[in-house]
Order: sequence, then structure tokens, then C-alpha cells
Amino acid sequence: MTLPDRLLMGPGPSNPYPEVTAAFAQPLLGHLDPEFLRILDETCDRLRTVFQTTNALTLPISGTGSAGMEACFVNLVEPDDVVVIGVNGVFGERMCEVARRAGATVVRVDAEWGQPIDPQRLLDAQAANPQARLVAVVHAETSTGVENDIAPLAALRNTDSLLLVDAVTSLAGIPLEVDGWNIDACYSGTQKCLGVPPGLSPVTFSARAVDRIGSRTTPVQSWYLDLGLIGDYVGTARKYHHTAPTGMIVALHAGLGAVLDEGLDAVWARHHDVGRMLQSALVTRGFDLIAPERSRLPQLTSVRLPAGLDELALRRRLLAEFDIEVGGGLGAFAGIAWRVGLMGHTARRRSVSTLLGALDTML
Amino acid sequence: MTLPDRLLMGPGPSNPYPEVTAAFAQPLLGHLDPEFLRILDETCDRLRTVFQTTNALTLPISGTGSAGMEACFVNLVEPDDVVVIGVNGVFGERMCEVARRAGATVVRVDAEWGQPIDPQRLLDAQAANPQARLVAVVHAETSTGVENDIAPLAALRNTDSLLLVDAVTSLAGIPLEVDGWNIDACYSGTQKCLGVPPGLSPVTFSARAVDRIGSRTTPVQSWYLDLGLIGDYVGTARKYHHTAPTGMIVALHAGLGAVLDEGLDAVWARHHDVGRMLQSALVTRGFDLIAPERSRLPQLTSVRLPAGLDELALRRRLLAEFDIEVGGGLGAFAGIAWRVGLMGHTARRRSVSTLLGALDTML
Repeated sequence: MTLPDRLLMGPGPSNPYPEVTAAFAQPLLGHLDPEFLRILDETCDRLRTVFQTTNALTLPISGTGSAGMEACFVNLVEPDDVVVIGVNGVFGERMCEVARRAGATVVRVDAEWGQPIDPQRLLDAQAANPQARLVAVVHAETSTGVENDIAPLAALRNTDSLLLVDAVTSLAGIPLEVDGWNIDACYSGTQKCLGVPPGLSPVTFSARAVDRIGSRTTPVQSWYLDLGLIGDYVGTARKYHHTAPTGMIVALHAGLGAVLDEGLDAVWARHHDVGRMLQSALVTRGFDLIAPERSRLPQLTSVRLPAGLDELALRRRLLAEFDIEVGGGLGAFAGIAWRVGLMGHTARRRSVSTLLGALDTML
Repeated sequence: MTLPDRLLMGPGPSNPYPEVTAAFAQPLLGHLDPEFLRILDETCDRLRTVFQTTNALTLPISGTGSAGMEACFVNLVEPDDVVVIGVNGVFGERMCEVARRAGATVVRVDAEWGQPIDPQRLLDAQAANPQARLVAVVHAETSTGVENDIAPLAALRNTDSLLLVDAVTSLAGIPLEVDGWNIDACYSGTQKCLGVPPGLSPVTFSARAVDRIGSRTTPVQSWYLDLGLIGDYVGTARKYHHTAPTGMIVALHAGLGAVLDEGLDAVWARHHDVGRMLQSALVTRGFDLIAPERSRLPQLTSVRLPAGLDELALRRRLLAEFDIEVGGGLGAFAGIAWRVGLMGHTARRRSVSTLLGALDTML
């Protein structure tokens, strides 16, 4: 069986770094093998560097980004806790649903899809609900291509509310400072700017968040995502919890290696440059960028198609004739917009020129 | 970086089938790519064949075997439900903990570690608790190498209790008949007899179980493991839930292909033959088999070491000098026993002779 060689320019997965593909060819190791545990430790160290944190509790959850989201809520929230959640797209909505299933009472701070959330509104909502256990917001909304400003939320350090940030699409794509912005809990995914296939969710928790978990009065409702138990395996105790996905973790180790060998600054600059290159070229061709310039992500571009173009037919031709995947719009943008990813190894000038070449051939 | 080439004879992961390693070298596909969806459908079909079921709701959960366990409990159980659980090892204990965190009241049916559970005792416990939502038991206890007899539990079809079976270590290693034994819910893992790295949990649910999920009065506490939502993606609706781990699913597709090309009967016979070969050779060398003969798994052998041997030192030498991994004992068997796996691609006569050669060299 030979699979088609797609250029993955949708909202994720992106094409893996070559180092990652090579890692999958390595012999598989057991989850208690000292050689594997050394790689696991290095993987957590590399995650700390990429997250820009010194948090001890930093590790890959054995599930995709949504499992990381759920891990954060079920560990940090107890029944009837109040949580403040910013919502300006699919993933803010998902946070509300996950929080409710963890028994939380959700205070929403809504902004229009395609627009950023004013961080002051989140701070105000916290001030109006000082008992809130946490304030949660998506850094890079994959559904709209909008960046929400996180840095001003560092002010939450002076409250009893933790700051929880979804960095699924932002980590290793745009600057993210877990310690610098006083983020207490943060989750990501491997299949976006880390250039690794989907399947793991890197997470990190501040000392304040760890204290919060340690002072729970009810058990974490998920055994699989219980960070106390997972930490006993990933940490020094090495106590068996579940069988770690060793092959995927070796692949993540390799992806993080590729990112750090290039350097975070260079990786951010590469994402920035190719994003702006794509965006201006699309405007030239009559596409309409959805996110306002100041909040426009480089690694995920949401665009309305020029009037008269059938987005689905064009998207299908791109895939079938040119082996290029782009994503469709979601919500209010379904049927009229595309989401074009330039993440991880895909974030290259050649990806942009390949897409433009195909578009110019078709249009 | 070059990783050591281990012979994985612990309790899992096993060595992947060569077809699986080859699959990881294929280009990565997006989770909504028609080519990927075709492979996903085929993977579910192959899982039906291996599970010996026609269940529509049959799919890989995006987590390891323990995530599959949790998916079964959180979807099938509502707060204050009674569940009957057989316990004769680590994984029966784990079921109790997962069930409690889902809000269930657990009725335990304990048997000594290393001994099977008499199925009549499970039927009796159900008869004494006819309101029980389900009766759960581990088919192949990885912690002790004991097989629990499932077929007699088919009698539960005449009650209101569902039958839930842990087939993590049994699937594709020993006969398992989901439809033939009237199993309502069953979960497994990829890293045992399927010969695929850890990271996915195949699950299957009967029509009766699907009805039970559909008639819940409370939401499933886990959004990530909500089978209604997952089924909307894996089924015909193709509605986005989370980003499926496409690379791992392509690998599972390949592992199932290897198993089905050989044929289930042949795969079971291979596991049976190499297990018996190892077990008699160990007895000859003064090792003491823990599981009674009638309930002794071929794919996972629990053995006490001859008196005077330091199990940990010997196990470490096997790994360091011979690149052979075997597992240590758990619970009452810690420090005095080994668990030796012969699962999936590792279930070869050469694996047995390699281990024996190393042991004979050391002893």
C-alpha cells in the first residue's frame, strides 16, 4: 500500500519534520527501559525549553490536544467550581463543554468569531467572579486564525484564579512565554507547529497549579488523565501508570530536537515570514483575510474566497489533482472560507509557492 | 541518535510487525482526507474481524488500553450505578478504580492473584445484584499470566447487566469471540498481540451497549472519550471531533493486515506453540510457573525464579548484555517472579531460543 504524498496545509496535522519520520524507523523501546526513560526525560526538558518554563510538571499526555485540554480541566476543577472562559471560536466553545462535564459553572466571555478577545474583559470577568478557580483562553484559535493576547493576563497572579491557556496551534509557531506570562496550565498538540504526527499533548503546570491539584477534596474524575498518577511515572518514582506510547514519544523527542536545533527565534521568524508571504499573495488574488492584522496568526490563515468560487470544489481539486490539503471554514465561515496552515516543517516558502502555483493553474 | 534493538519480551509493548514499521515511513495524511478515511473504515472492518463481531460501533480510541477501559466505564455507567467487577490482578483492580471515579458502586468478586475467577461466582454476584449495569472482567490478566474464562458469562444476555471484557492482552493472542460470547463492550491495546506500538485502544460495543449509551440521563463525564461524539466522526457523519492520530491508525491498519494475512487460527496457534515451548523450557531450568495449567496464557508467562537467583540483577543483565527485555513481577510476585511476553511479532520460536540461550549463558 502506498499512500499519497500530501502537502499538509490544513489546520493540522502538518507534514512531520524529516527527523521525526526517521525516528519512527528506530527500534521500539519498552516504557520502563532505561534508554527510553532517558529519552522521556530529555523530551520533558525540551518541552520546558519550548514552553519557556521551568515547571517541574511538564510532560506529554498520551492523547491528542483535546485530551490535554480535558486533563487540564479535570485536574484543576472540582464540581461546582466557577471558571471564566474566553470564547471566540470552536476551541473556546470546546473548553466550555469540557469544563461543564467536569462539573464547573462556566462564566463565558464571548467575542465575535474572527475577532480577538480583549484581555481586559477576561480580567473584568475574573474581578466580578473572584472565586473563579481559573480563567481559560485559547492563544491561537485554529477555527478562525486569530491570536488572543495572553501577556496582560499575567495580572491574574495577584488573584486566586489560575490562568489556563490553549497553545495547541501556537506552541513553536509564535512566541509563547509560560513563565513570563504567569501561565499556570498550558496544553498543546504535536501535529501543528511541532511537526510531529497527532497523538500526544504536551502540558505544563506551574507550582501554583500543582498545589491546587494537591489540595483537591475530590478525586480527579479521569483515572487516565490523573496528573498525580501520571507524574509518578514521568517523575522520579517511575511508578507504572499506563503504557506510555513510546514510539510517539521518541518521535516527539525528534521533532523538538529539530525545533531547538533551528532555535526558537528562527522557528518563529520562519512561521512569521511564510505566513505574511502567503497572506499578501492571497490578497493580491482577491482573497479576503478574516483576522484583523494585529491579531492575525502567521501559521493558520483564515480567508474568504473571491466571490463566485466554489470553495469545496476548489479544495477537492487541490487535493485530488495537486495533493495539497487545505481546510474548510468552520461555523459562520463554512462554505465561504478556507483555513490554510503553515506549521512546523510545512512552514516553508516552497509550500507557499506550491499552493499559489496550483491556485494560479486552476483559476 | 540510534536506539538499542531490543527483543521486547516483557508484558508489552511487543516488537512491531515489519509491516507496521514500514507503515510509519508512509507520508502522513490528514484526518479528513478521503484516502485516510478509507483506511480508517478498513481498520474498523479489520477490527471487527479480529474481535469476531459485527458490531457497528467498533473503532480505535485515541489513547492506550487504559483509555479504552475508561471509555467503556464512563460511557456505560452513570452515577450510583452498581457494577460487578472480577478482580484477580492489577487490571481488575484498575477497573474498580476507574468505575468508582465514574460514580459507580462496585461489587467486587475477588480471586487469588495467580488463580482464575470462577465465572459462576460472577454470575452469582450478578444474580444477587440484578440491578447491576454491567459485569466486568479481564480476559487475560497481564499482571499474573492467568486467563479468565469468559464464554460462560454469555448467560448475562438474559439479564439487564451488560458484559464488559478487558481484552488488552488477549486480542489476537488467544481465541476471543465478542459475538459468540455475547460480550457487550470490549477494549484492547495495540502494543500486545496486535504487534503495533502503544497509543491506540481498539474498542467494540454491541447494539445493547449502544442502546444503553443512547438512553443515558446524564452526559458522559469525558468529552474526549464520549462515544456518541467519536462515533459521529468514525461513522458516516464524518463530523470533526478531535484530530485522529492518523499515523498510528495507518500503523494499526498494517498490523491488523499482518494478523489477518496470516489468519486468526494460525496466529492463535503460533502464540500457543511458542508459549508452551517457553513454559516447558523454563520448568526444565527450575523455574516455577505461577498460573495453573488450564488457565495459563501462552502469550504472557508468569514464573517464579529458582531459589537463589536475584531477579532484578538477572533482568538488568538480560537487557544490558543481551538487549532482551522481560518484565518483573507485580504485587505479591514483585522481586520473585518474571513476566515473559511472547506477543504479536515477538511470538516466534527464535524469541524463545534467544531468551533461553541468554539465560543458559548467564546461569
